[in-house]
Amino acid sequence: MLSAVILGTGNLARHLFGVFSKTENVDVVQVVGRNERRLVQYFDSTHISTDFDTVKDADVYIIAVSDRAIGDVSRFLKNKKGLVVHTSGATEMDAIQTENRGVFYPLQTFSEERSANFRSIPICIEARKKESLSILQELADSISDKVHKIDSEQRKKLHLAAVFVNNFTNHFYLIGEEICASAGLSFDLLKPLIRETAEKVQSMSPAKAQTGPARRNDTISMEKHLTLLKDQKQIELYTLCSKAIKEVYEKKL
Amino acid sequence: MLSAVILGTGNLARHLFGVFSKTENVDVVQVVGRNERRLVQYFDSTHISTDFDTVKDADVYIIAVSDRAIGDVSRFLKNKKGLVVHTSGATEMDAIQTENRGVFYPLQTFSEERSANFRSIPICIEARKKESLSILQELADSISDKVHKIDSEQRKKLHLAAVFVNNFTNHFYLIGEEICASAGLSFDLLKPLIRETAEKVQSMSPAKAQTGPARRNDTISMEKHLTLLKDQKQIELYTLCSKAIKEVYEKKL
Repeated sequence: MLSAVILGTGNLARHLFGVFSKTENVDVVQVVGRNERRLVQYFDSTHISTDFDTVKDADVYIIAVSDRAIGDVSRFLKNKKGLVVHTSGATEMDAIQTENRGVFYPLQTFSEERSANFRSIPICIEARKKESLSILQELADSISDKVHKIDSEQRKKLHLAAVFVNNFTNHFYLIGEEICASAGLSFDLLKPLIRETAEKVQSMSPAKAQTGPARRNDTISMEKHLTLLKDQKQIELYTLCSKAIKEVYEKKL
Repeated sequence: MLSAVILGTGNLARHLFGVFSKTENVDVVQVVGRNERRLVQYFDSTHISTDFDTVKDADVYIIAVSDRAIGDVSRFLKNKKGLVVHTSGATEMDAIQTENRGVFYPLQTFSEERSANFRSIPICIEARKKESLSILQELADSISDKVHKIDSEQRKKLHLAAVFVNNFTNHFYLIGEEICASAGLSFDLLKPLIRETAEKVQSMSPAKAQTGPARRNDTISMEKHLTLLKDQKQIELYTLCSKAIKEVYEKKL
């Protein structure tokens, strides 16, 4: 049985508390965070505190706060023997100010409204000490079937890749919605296509899944599309993405 | 009972044949296409022909060929009384060279390897004659729960929106795969995130679902990301997408 303290009260902290609570071999002995309103939801289930000077002893301290607060929060744990980890994709392990440190990064987008199935979420772990890596492996195995040992350099690149497939992709969903709206059409029309586009690459490489005017260098269709766009950013994005796709397939010829 | 002829032997033609074959009130009386190898798969199920001069009589002729061949194929149907439709998102209805014409556009990406659940695929219909629109409605209702009457101008914009949420999004999956590879990591790591990103906007607006460094104008993270990229096109795409996202949320402030 591993004991854990969760530091933070955001979306990820809440999801982690939820999944660890249902796990037999992990005991969340405390949740610590400044936001009292968000903290009270744990009142019935575990100890809560708004004071980082009153953190209980535990095997693992999971810092789930905004990237720039990780260092500050970790300083409160300087005298703790347990392993201190953060949960950030973009932050180096060494942002943590304690000797016994590591990273526990679940690669997923978490939101308040949606539940998360942790068993299929990749968890990327890293630790300074070998014995701490074993503890993290045990912690991660208890909730996920996809645990990966990844160092800080790899994790930074993984986070960058995630920006492309999540943040930028979501922005294209927004553009899709705006174009639909400009034609008096509902965004609902695009939803099955959005879903299938994501499902397709679960079993097929993106290179193979690529279709469309840019893929087949159909300049007439692309020019027609550009005349339909009014927004300057959308025009630039259309032009640049089409060029990028064209280049990929020109290289292959 | 509606009788139909399918003209074409590509992915969409094959999927349409498959779904209509299982539909009680539609009878596919013939499949016509130049590609003999692809045509033989229908040999046991219906009449086949490689000769467009031997098209049988039917209520509806469904042209499922490449955009630029639509006009040519439709010329073979000049003496037919039935309704002639194409299945293209980007092509005007009037590309068809017969009087009784329309459009039957299933908004989805079709591939050889994957099955399609037509009941959830939006089908956009358009027809020149009112009575033909009723026939198309009946045809579409028989396979889908999401039938929309959409004119050629709307359909062009819808197709453009589809390019953003499908073609361009898929290219970002490819970039994600390339960045992972550059760090010695498997694309598999990104798959749950790709899936969840698409699932999220099924019930949440893209504007609300947006997260990431650009969304919160975190210039430090964005600069760090840019130093990790080596490919010039990826740098340009990262910069432009980040700017576009930033602008959306600046407007909202």
